[in-house]
Amino acid sequence: MAQQAAPKGDQNGAAEPPPAKDVAAEQLSPEETYDIEPELVSEVVQALQASKIKKAEKLLRPLHPADVADIIEYLGSEERRLLIDVIGGKMEPEVLSHLDASVREDVIDQLGPRNLVQALSELDSDDAVEIFEDLDEEAQHRILASLPRAYRQLLEESLSYPEDTAGRLMQRELVAVPSAWTVGQTIDYMRAAEELPDDFYDLIIVNPKHRPVGVIPLSRVLRTRRPVRLPEIMDTDMKLIPLTMDQEDVAYTFRQYGLVSAPVVDDAGRLVGVITVDDVVHVIDEEAEEDIMMLAGVGETDLYSAALDTTKSRFPWLVVNLLTAILASVVIGLFETTIEKLVALAVLMPIVASMGGNAGTQTLTVAVRSIAMKDLTAANAMRFVGKELIVGSSNGILFAILTGIVAWLWFQSPELGIVIGAAMVFNMVVAALSGTLIPLGLERVGVDPAIASSVFVTTVTDVVGFFAFLSLAALFLL
Amino acid sequence: MAQQAAPKGDQNGAAEPPPAKDVAAEQLSPEETYDIEPELVSEVVQALQASKIKKAEKLLRPLHPADVADIIEYLGSEERRLLIDVIGGKMEPEVLSHLDASVREDVIDQLGPRNLVQALSELDSDDAVEIFEDLDEEAQHRILASLPRAYRQLLEESLSYPEDTAGRLMQRELVAVPSAWTVGQTIDYMRAAEELPDDFYDLIIVNPKHRPVGVIPLSRVLRTRRPVRLPEIMDTDMKLIPLTMDQEDVAYTFRQYGLVSAPVVDDAGRLVGVITVDDVVHVIDEEAEEDIMMLAGVGETDLYSAALDTTKSRFPWLVVNLLTAILASVVIGLFETTIEKLVALAVLMPIVASMGGNAGTQTLTVAVRSIAMKDLTAANAMRFVGKELIVGSSNGILFAILTGIVAWLWFQSPELGIVIGAAMVFNMVVAALSGTLIPLGLERVGVDPAIASSVFVTTVTDVVGFFAFLSLAALFLL
Repeated sequence: MAQQAAPKGDQNGAAEPPPAKDVAAEQLSPEETYDIEPELVSEVVQALQASKIKKAEKLLRPLHPADVADIIEYLGSEERRLLIDVIGGKMEPEVLSHLDASVREDVIDQLGPRNLVQALSELDSDDAVEIFEDLDEEAQHRILASLPRAYRQLLEESLSYPEDTAGRLMQRELVAVPSAWTVGQTIDYMRAAEELPDDFYDLIIVNPKHRPVGVIPLSRVLRTRRPVRLPEIMDTDMKLIPLTMDQEDVAYTFRQYGLVSAPVVDDAGRLVGVITVDDVVHVIDEEAEEDIMMLAGVGETDLYSAALDTTKSRFPWLVVNLLTAILASVVIGLFETTIEKLVALAVLMPIVASMGGNAGTQTLTVAVRSIAMKDLTAANAMRFVGKELIVGSSNGILFAILTGIVAWLWFQSPELGIVIGAAMVFNMVVAALSGTLIPLGLERVGVDPAIASSVFVTTVTDVVGFFAFLSLAALFLL
Repeated sequence: MAQQAAPKGDQNGAAEPPPAKDVAAEQLSPEETYDIEPELVSEVVQALQASKIKKAEKLLRPLHPADVADIIEYLGSEERRLLIDVIGGKMEPEVLSHLDASVREDVIDQLGPRNLVQALSELDSDDAVEIFEDLDEEAQHRILASLPRAYRQLLEESLSYPEDTAGRLMQRELVAVPSAWTVGQTIDYMRAAEELPDDFYDLIIVNPKHRPVGVIPLSRVLRTRRPVRLPEIMDTDMKLIPLTMDQEDVAYTFRQYGLVSAPVVDDAGRLVGVITVDDVVHVIDEEAEEDIMMLAGVGETDLYSAALDTTKSRFPWLVVNLLTAILASVVIGLFETTIEKLVALAVLMPIVASMGGNAGTQTLTVAVRSIAMKDLTAANAMRFVGKELIVGSSNGILFAILTGIVAWLWFQSPELGIVIGAAMVFNMVVAALSGTLIPLGLERVGVDPAIASSVFVTTVTDVVGFFAFLSLAALFLL
């Protein structure tokens, strides 16, 4: 049963006298959110352009590092340089963690190695690794050499794990206690310890081999009396994350089991780090972003990249599309004489290809997303293909009728209507097949279905669409 | 500085004797993940089909509710009915929370109101609301009438907040303590209290008006000595979530400030609930999903929907696309006589339209995602449009040259190459403009840019692509 848990006598505050000082008075109105106001950004820009250094600093001082990072991102490159000159060394190191990778590169260049070393050594190891892994190799060596030895070793070890794995994601700072302890001993230890991580959510219980044997949420530690031994209240069915687990699988595990933190273990099962949910939220965003961007043929969100970099990064995808468009043209070219005799075909042919492309994209998007979320697996793949075939033929028949009527009325030819209708049904069934089998097949051979599915599927629906319509027309209308 | 915080003498476990019982031995190998094995699903199916009820139950018993939910989703409707008949009343209520909405509807129908009332009353209020809000009104009334009065009021209140707001997302169970207390008093209170939420991560400090004045992460409570008064260790710059804040803004706030939980307040600033990060992970998934699906013209992931429902839900988008395809055909129809004279135009014309469509989709996808992530705002919109114009014209010129050469060589006509090149540059610039201005404009007038941008943009690039190419050809080639 649910009940609001607050100390008695405190729930019905309306009858009590107002407090002397009301800290909560400055809360948000319901319409407000925590977005950054465009006005603040322009104030900062104006202050920088007028060389009012003090004013710019004063505007930024009360802000959370994540908000400072956003403002730095919003600035043009000129103002950005001015701002970093001003706040450079005094900037909170967390600002770096929150910057978009392409902006961060510029900022780090300008900060110089000394400021960067300082910033890195103040961050938790997982945040430091994230910044560090984006640097080029030469810069990495230079920075590593200037770091304190113990911290350098930690970083080097983290960097030795493959990218996008649990080893890169985890932080090394954690709280592990032996299973022989009681709640009281644990609390005393934590009160006395100097070097604990800033925030942690679970206590990890380890055996003498330093292998995790259980976890206890902090809320449970707080609610348990001092003499109770830890094994009595620990969860032993915790999820352990192997160092080499892919970050997508880490995200799946957190999401599936509603975790807030999870121990990371090496090959021998020894505790080496901990992953917390804030890192996982970041991965979830990144993975969703990747899927969206890849489906549209954009490498990654390039909002903050320079125009030249963006032009370059989008070029390859457009080349691939040019090739598939030329392939479709070649198919049309096979029917030049047919089109010459019946130019209505040229007018109508894009409809068949376009509808197939759209139906195929609908199907493949559901497939790509469901595969990424592990909802579509070998266990239900065949049922999915079967269902999409039914959907494709149903909508195919409906749109065959609609398009057939339009073609008939437009060109006064029932035969043309029948031909375009037949081509439509055929292409929508092909769209369903390619929209399911192509992503499932790519996944099977280990290629990310998001990256290549859409170009394959639209190529198939274009080629089949033009070919089906024009060849049926050549056979039956001329 | 970073350092692994573990009790001394416990870090170098290799030299110590092995423990009597090694609970952690059954950990994952690095290649393994926590996915559900297809074999397990087929074992369950076989057991059900052979009416081996006991065996099916035994297979499911050790599983986490989220995994049981996945297996229920993987089953065909026949086996699903069998399984629910078997485990129905004994099912952990959390299984319901983890089910996909369309599957949950079926399961709830089969469970019947009595089992549902039982399940709802065992869940935290936010999970109960999430299940409840999907029921039809008549079912809601029937269920509400059977719930205990206090719980019914809680649910009714939660349901009175608009959908997709903080009020629906929050749980009512929370831990709030007065600011006069010490750490010791707080710990004693928590040890004695019966009705606390299962898991919580922050202590919320309230004033006599029950307004939050600060929060303390539990890790800090544990590390502080008993006589310390709470105000000395609380953070006063916590982020308060208004009841009516949109869930997208809630997700933004959690992501931006790395929150694990946040207090929810009513209009008068009084504490009414708390949102935890697991709810927010769910929202982030949902919002990313929505963006991906809408861009492809799918209402929502329909993996588990029946074929008929899927056909219906995809139909409207395809109708819109049929209309835009017909519009493009009308444009082509204006040039029937031109095409009749020069059939090469029919062969080449899809290339211009297709390249414009792809370039426009790249741009609009970056725009839609950046708007959703609050990276693209009024503060940097004009810089974004300007950059995309540069990218569009640069790639436009490159592809004009490539396509021009192809057309020239193919049809032995340099004039045709120049015409298609000119049309290409023009259409790629139009693609950049429509790919930026359409989503920004939709956002400005309060329409979700994900839902409608792509159909507008591809309509523009199709119509402009065909018109530019064919009209230039009519003017200069005939």
